[in-house]
Amino acid sequence: MPEKTNTATLLLSCPDHRGLVARIAQFIFTHGGNIIDLDEHVDTNEGLFFLRVSWDMEGFALSGEEVCNAFQPMGDEFQAQWIIKLSHAHDQRRLAILVSKYDHCLQEILWRHGLGEFDADIALIISNHPDLKPLADQHRIPFHLFPITKENKMQQEQKELSLLKNENIDTVILARYMQVLSPSFVQAYPNGIINIHHSFLPAFMGGNPYKQAYERGVKIIGATSHYVTDNLDEGPIIEQDIIRISHKDALDDLIRKGRDLERWVLARGLRLHLQDRILVYGNKTVVFD
Amino acid sequence: MPEKTNTATLLLSCPDHRGLVARIAQFIFTHGGNIIDLDEHVDTNEGLFFLRVSWDMEGFALSGEEVCNAFQPMGDEFQAQWIIKLSHAHDQRRLAILVSKYDHCLQEILWRHGLGEFDADIALIISNHPDLKPLADQHRIPFHLFPITKENKMQQEQKELSLLKNENIDTVILARYMQVLSPSFVQAYPNGIINIHHSFLPAFMGGNPYKQAYERGVKIIGATSHYVTDNLDEGPIIEQDIIRISHKDALDDLIRKGRDLERWVLARGLRLHLQDRILVYGNKTVVFD
Amino acid sequence: MPEKTNTATLLLSCPDHRGLVARIAQFIFTHGGNIIDLDEHVDTNEGLFFLRVSWDMEGFALSGEEVCNAFQPMGDEFQAQWIIKLSHAHDQRRLAILVSKYDHCLQEILWRHGLGEFDADIALIISNHPDLKPLADQHRIPFHLFPITKENKMQQEQKELSLLKNENIDTVILARYMQVLSPSFVQAYPNGIINIHHSFLPAFMGGNPYKQAYERGVKIIGATSHYVTDNLDEGPIIEQDIIRISHKDALDDLIRKGRDLERWVLARGLRLHLQDRILVYGNKTVVFD
Amino acid sequence: MPEKTNTATLLLSCPDHRGLVARIAQFIFTHGGNIIDLDEHVDTNEGLFFLRVSWDMEGFALSGEEVCNAFQPMGDEFQAQWIIKLSHAHDQRRLAILVSKYDHCLQEILWRHGLGEFDADIALIISNHPDLKPLADQHRIPFHLFPITKENKMQQEQKELSLLKNENIDTVILARYMQVLSPSFVQAYPNGIINIHHSFLPAFMGGNPYKQAYERGVKIIGATSHYVTDNLDEGPIIEQDIIRISHKDALDDLIRKGRDLERWVLARGLRLHLQDRILVYGNKTVVFD
Repeated sequence: MPEKTNTATLLLSCPDHRGLVARIAQFIFTHGGNIIDLDEHVDTNEGLFFLRVSWDMEGFALSGEEVCNAFQPMGDEFQAQWIIKLSHAHDQRRLAILVSKYDHCLQEILWRHGLGEFDADIALIISNHPDLKPLADQHRIPFHLFPITKENKMQQEQKELSLLKNENIDTVILARYMQVLSPSFVQAYPNGIINIHHSFLPAFMGGNPYKQAYERGVKIIGATSHYVTDNLDEGPIIEQDIIRISHKDALDDLIRKGRDLERWVLARGLRLHLQDRILVYGNKTVVFD
Repeated sequence: MPEKTNTATLLLSCPDHRGLVARIAQFIFTHGGNIIDLDEHVDTNEGLFFLRVSWDMEGFALSGEEVCNAFQPMGDEFQAQWIIKLSHAHDQRRLAILVSKYDHCLQEILWRHGLGEFDADIALIISNHPDLKPLADQHRIPFHLFPITKENKMQQEQKELSLLKNENIDTVILARYMQVLSPSFVQAYPNGIINIHHSFLPAFMGGNPYKQAYERGVKIIGATSHYVTDNLDEGPIIEQDIIRISHKDALDDLIRKGRDLERWVLARGLRLHLQDRILVYGNKTVVFD
Repeated sequence: MPEKTNTATLLLSCPDHRGLVARIAQFIFTHGGNIIDLDEHVDTNEGLFFLRVSWDMEGFALSGEEVCNAFQPMGDEFQAQWIIKLSHAHDQRRLAILVSKYDHCLQEILWRHGLGEFDADIALIISNHPDLKPLADQHRIPFHLFPITKENKMQQEQKELSLLKNENIDTVILARYMQVLSPSFVQAYPNGIINIHHSFLPAFMGGNPYKQAYERGVKIIGATSHYVTDNLDEGPIIEQDIIRISHKDALDDLIRKGRDLERWVLARGLRLHLQDRILVYGNKTVVFD
Repeated sequence: MPEKTNTATLLLSCPDHRGLVARIAQFIFTHGGNIIDLDEHVDTNEGLFFLRVSWDMEGFALSGEEVCNAFQPMGDEFQAQWIIKLSHAHDQRRLAILVSKYDHCLQEILWRHGLGEFDADIALIISNHPDLKPLADQHRIPFHLFPITKENKMQQEQKELSLLKNENIDTVILARYMQVLSPSFVQAYPNGIINIHHSFLPAFMGGNPYKQAYERGVKIIGATSHYVTDNLDEGPIIEQDIIRISHKDALDDLIRKGRDLERWVLARGLRLHLQDRILVYGNKTVVFD
């Protein structure tokens, strides 16, 4: 697995112009890196350049800290948004998972994390209900209860944000969290909050998507993982998947079948995010998978 | 193949009550029929009974005409909507295909028809543009040109309806026909007009669904075949399917990939319709496949 | 959900002849049952009749025990293999799960069982390794360790069979159990042992299917749940599913992606089995889903 | 669409070492090219480097012929297998399609070709039966009849090869051609003959795969497009896809459903080939899609 090798990964987007690949590849070569995977895409309509490149750190002349410093001038020159991640770094990504009462998405993430599928620390779980505390305890992950009412919502969210800050959280996962986050929360984590919506967006936005699907009489249901923005269910889509249903499926069957989709689509979206395979532009994503 | 055997098929829906299956099976047995396939479903919420049953006509005591007459009293008693179709009847279903300029859906239907996949006569093709006349000629199917403007739309539709009536058309297929039918046309063919919409309904209703999908940045596109009702793109869904796309796909790629979906989903929907596998109730369908 | 209603389900196969559906439906009607779902299929090549019918026990004149006795003469007359199951019966199906070291299939079954997706008791877990005992403990399911060597295999299997008998086990699940069962074990549970094979059978039978798939360079991998017969990986197939792979996927990625398939395909196969939706004939299955 | 832009595409494989991407990107940049898409992959087990890069020829300093000459020394130095294709070149790829009696794959290719999906000339059709001559005539493509018997097979193949040579054919498509090509024919077109096999290889190799699938009782059938090598059905796989079947599907239904798969999988494989997206190594493929 490439994950086991000691690698560095650069993820970068910037205005397109001639010579970008040559410059970046030259930078890696000059310091002794061997490129393992490179995926590049230009949106010719928008004039935007997207790149993800991983190289073997075996024999690379720069340490983790040095490589960022060394790349900085080129990043500035390209007016790029960029990040360099090292597979063997000690500062792993730190996740917070927000849940309410449903356990299936949380279970799935915890189970996959235990198998090593996610290269990250699950630092804490936040919920507005106490129901999933035993599951958190079982995995020895701190569980923080923040009951939400109309009146206390803003204060509770501020406390949650303080907690996330103190814990150096960089990615927030809404694992069927049944509260809408307010704009100030969302803006604290641009492209850092991942939600699972239980429909094939943009179909069936809002509440009760399975009921909506049942009543419309569709033959396929879906799930969507996406980054959270101010507009509910309208953020950049990361991953989607579907499953067939028929007239024999009652609403409860849709919920049961959809549960499986939700688990998969959230887990796949999270893995793509943690592997730095996603670039957001406008309201869309480039996913290098 | 059941299609080759001499069979009769009863498709029926009615209010549910005890003993319906026993009565219908007894009717078939009494006259010497052997049931090959029976699929029954009750919507317990709505209290509705749906059934499709096919039996071998070998040794059956009633001829095609007689079987309908014999079943009539039971159908009346059950307050049922029902139809009995005979595989070896001379009075095949008669189709009209409405097209504009795109040929892919028409090609697909004509090709499959040539292979014997559709048990029906394609009686005629209607278009508002002359572009596909050569294709119709090649298959020796009468091609009728009805150019549509804002001014003449109602008159042209009336002429089309007269033509359809004269030709004993019972099923109308909108094979990427780029005109919205007016309510009077739609009402002349309740559950008899099949449309292909090039999106995963209810996502991206209305015009330019591929452009809408491209701009939204979805990771999957779809197509939907449905019966046409007065509300555009809101009729009962027959069949849906999807295909994956990525950031590498430009709008033209969506159109190209979607073209394949449209062909399949329309052809599958039409086949289900022609095999009397669909029962409409409210705005939904029971599909016995 | 039909599962919540008090229903009876008859699953039956026998030589085909006229009047079977009428007789069975009449039997249900006579005693006051209302049929909710009936699915019937005739294999006209083999002359075999397959049927699954569920009816509402509300107002049904016979109790659970009585219904079997009442149906017995008809079953005998039809030379049928049949079973009648009652949704609200106290004698639930009793499962034994056999595992080795991998936990993913076991986790999936336990989690779904906790959600109520399987209408059965998980009576015990058997393993040839101690690794999964903590997981069994956590769910408070008795865990029995039977280490297997070449020398002790027959004796250990006999002990396992005694245990299964004592515990009234009717279904055995091989959840990535890494031992081949000997014929005497298999014959004790005809169509009662369900295995998950981590390939799209009949491709890649035998050991290391992911390695075989990797080396062949396929673009899709699969998983298969099937009943166990004397011939390894050749029993009647219940369910299959697939996932796409590419040249970027190393062997470890195949294993990771396949793990998800195995979980789904085993769980779906088990659910179909527990809902009495499967009829085996020859080496094939009729699956009424 | 990239196809509309004037682009050059380099497809290359060679032993991996440091600096390859930098050197190639520098080559393109030096002559004024702007890279649109670059996909690179290293098989770290085998130590092999694979790359596909497309750049805009707008403002590029070298003409089509010159670019190959200019790249030659670098290709030699890297011990690479490589090809550079120009989107606006006059020397399009030239295809020969071999068929027998089934028309569905041929129809599909001709229809897509008419839509501009394949950037190639269909130079001729060869068949061992006269059945599809009318279809060839209709599309004004030369049709060559070479009836095959056990006795004349070698001579007929030699004549076919002469014809292919005279017509400068570079890609041969077996569109359900029902003859096995002899090794000398195959060796004349290494990685240049594409076959569609009507099963999910390696399952059901050899003759009558649908019958094999029907008898095995699988729940999913497939199709595979692959390059032809000396070992029947064992060449490098390009593309695969599947469709669900059930106990209701008779052998004829498998054939009908499979027909659709064959069309899609062959067409997708051919498109990938014509867009220079496939690199063969050993018995596997890298597909840059």
